Amino acid sequence: MADYNELALKLHKENKGKISVTSKVKVETKDDLSTAYTPGVAQPCREIEKNKDTAYDYTSKGNLVAVVSDGSAVLGLGDIGASASIPVMEGKAVLFKSFADVDAFPICLDTQDVDEIVRTVKLMEPVFGGVNLEDIKAPRCFEIESRLKEILDIPVFHDDQHGTAIVVVAGLINGLKLVDKKMEEIEVIVNGAGSAGIAISKLLLSLGVKNIILCGRKGALHKNSKDMNWAQLEMTKITNNNNETGTLKEVIKGKDVFIGVSGPNIVTKEMVSTMAAKSIVFAMANPVPEIMPDEAKAGGAYIVGTGRSDFPNQVNNVLAFPGIFRGALDVRASDINEEMKIAAAYAIAETISEDELNEDNILPKAFDKRTAKNVANAVKKAAIEIGVARKK
Amino acid sequence: MADYNELALKLHKENKGKISVTSKVKVETKDDLSTAYTPGVAQPCREIEKNKDTAYDYTSKGNLVAVVSDGSAVLGLGDIGASASIPVMEGKAVLFKSFADVDAFPICLDTQDVDEIVRTVKLMEPVFGGVNLEDIKAPRCFEIESRLKEILDIPVFHDDQHGTAIVVVAGLINGLKLVDKKMEEIEVIVNGAGSAGIAISKLLLSLGVKNIILCGRKGALHKNSKDMNWAQLEMTKITNNNNETGTLKEVIKGKDVFIGVSGPNIVTKEMVSTMAAKSIVFAMANPVPEIMPDEAKAGGAYIVGTGRSDFPNQVNNVLAFPGIFRGALDVRASDINEEMKIAAAYAIAETISEDELNEDNILPKAFDKRTAKNVANAVKKAAIEIGVARKK
Repeated sequence: MADYNELALKLHKENKGKISVTSKVKVETKDDLSTAYTPGVAQPCREIEKNKDTAYDYTSKGNLVAVVSDGSAVLGLGDIGASASIPVMEGKAVLFKSFADVDAFPICLDTQDVDEIVRTVKLMEPVFGGVNLEDIKAPRCFEIESRLKEILDIPVFHDDQHGTAIVVVAGLINGLKLVDKKMEEIEVIVNGAGSAGIAISKLLLSLGVKNIILCGRKGALHKNSKDMNWAQLEMTKITNNNNETGTLKEVIKGKDVFIGVSGPNIVTKEMVSTMAAKSIVFAMANPVPEIMPDEAKAGGAYIVGTGRSDFPNQVNNVLAFPGIFRGALDVRASDINEEMKIAAAYAIAETISEDELNEDNILPKAFDKRTAKNVANAVKKAAIEIGVARKK
Repeated sequence: MADYNELALKLHKENKGKISVTSKVKVETKDDLSTAYTPGVAQPCREIEKNKDTAYDYTSKGNLVAVVSDGSAVLGLGDIGASASIPVMEGKAVLFKSFADVDAFPICLDTQDVDEIVRTVKLMEPVFGGVNLEDIKAPRCFEIESRLKEILDIPVFHDDQHGTAIVVVAGLINGLKLVDKKMEEIEVIVNGAGSAGIAISKLLLSLGVKNIILCGRKGALHKNSKDMNWAQLEMTKITNNNNETGTLKEVIKGKDVFIGVSGPNIVTKEMVSTMAAKSIVFAMANPVPEIMPDEAKAGGAYIVGTGRSDFPNQVNNVLAFPGIFRGALDVRASDINEEMKIAAAYAIAETISEDELNEDNILPKAFDKRTAKNVANAVKKAAIEIGVARKK
């Protein structure tokens, strides 16, 4: 594997960061200046003053997404703060642009106070058409997201939660076809009770999965688990129907699906071998997965996915967020809701045709140009059907 | 004159605003993705976590300016709010890019509370290398600027104040050469006691002008004027040495220079005729100046400048702010201080060579490519000399 650390330092230093703010109009003559700036610019200002919605017509708002972070849970690096989070947020902006022609701008806030973050994003709302929350620690991220959804007129999407959930679900939709099981029948372990694990569990429940065991560091979360935060406590009310207790090793027995958003090497071949027949394993810890694919296969897993691009079935958020925002922005959606997320998951899954589908190809590759387009179309359609589209 | 209102609506609508966020790096292969994003991106994050200053090396911070407004005093339109101010702020970003290759991003805040504005800009500081305040009402703008200068590590510049002041002063430097008067000798009327008028007065004092009469709607501000805000009250302590009272018509008599940042048609030919010999008139109200140039000349003015591009001697902020930020960013200046502003004014003035200088050509044209370069160099030099440069 290439030394991406060295390459990344070089790339970032040579380019002095990764984003630039460019002009869509030329300013080369007096007339250009009088049209893009004073006196002409006063006219679009007057129109927007009369009707705020025309900001979508006369400004960049309709294609502009704020990538908001407080730097509290950046990649696997943890709480590194706002400044150190910038390269990730710029990277996100680069992906938005490259994959779906969305203009995205990093807003890295030097506070971890929920009220301040919510208020700051509210104050900046005028220029943006959407908000992508990123790398904010759980459970704070849940409160920030739900409060912003409440007070903003533009869609809010926490990618670490929903992007991951959507792509996992897409993989599972295709995986279940291959093992000939139904969402309603399967029993699922979700290991890692942070923002991604909780969001995955919720989306699976929306998709019809009946029994999910959400596990933390000490094993299955159940009604009497200790040291849970409020979000985990809420989850125990809608998961773990049989109130199973025990370590991951104990509760994984007999389950159909393992979904890991936790840490390296915590699942063994032996543990996989205790799962149900034709088990599916998503081991998404990065860079070292919960179990290496060959080990999982040796343990009997029929399908294995990871977060890495050097193994088959990469669960990569880039399959979801660019197309989701492209679709939401195109119809000026006021929200990105459950129906739109499910539509996105099916669109990703269906990007793989029946001919292409096999146990090493359940998800499109990152650079498959069909994906963002399919996702955008599906999200648009869902937004219109559910009534959150303000433009058709 | 072209119908810039119609042209502007068309331009803004066809382009859906004027700015775009683009990527400086290509993401076309797995390796690109692993370098610009995970896993490679973690390395610049780690470096910045160790040493915050390296954000200038690994992110776009060093070339990125926030154009911050609360929409309270936009052009001549007044308090039109954050959304309606966006076209102006995007326009500013376009000019930053076109004239000095500075990346600028509009931050239009949906609040007019000083504490909130100050706090919000502070929270966003990590991603930006500088702050350009724009179209914020006086006297609020003074407090916001001074508090931000106090708490931010990056330069803060309120263009409506200092940009205008610098260009007027540049024009005056050249104008005085032609009329053979010295800064120390002249008596100046500044009509309009808002942000621009006050900033112009202060910069003139820094340049050595001894007596300035600042006028509001009711005439000269003096020690016993009523209904002044705190900023105007402060100004009465350092202007109007002889405590002159009376209307503009009364106090303009015998003065060498009239500088108007006020409203249309409030100066007559007769009033100009009462000024000292070889008078200089800057009538910068937009779009209709305090007095039309031909009228002012008929009244005896030797040199006339306006804010308009269709008359000689346009006082246009675009001569100042792009080069000023270019220079400040290039040396990672922590401030844009009085010395840097004065250096900028001289650099603008000196862009006009002795051969080029005449009463209809005291300022460079907006598209004179020499200006931003000269200003940037002068500002850099001043920043280094005065000790606010963090890089040479």
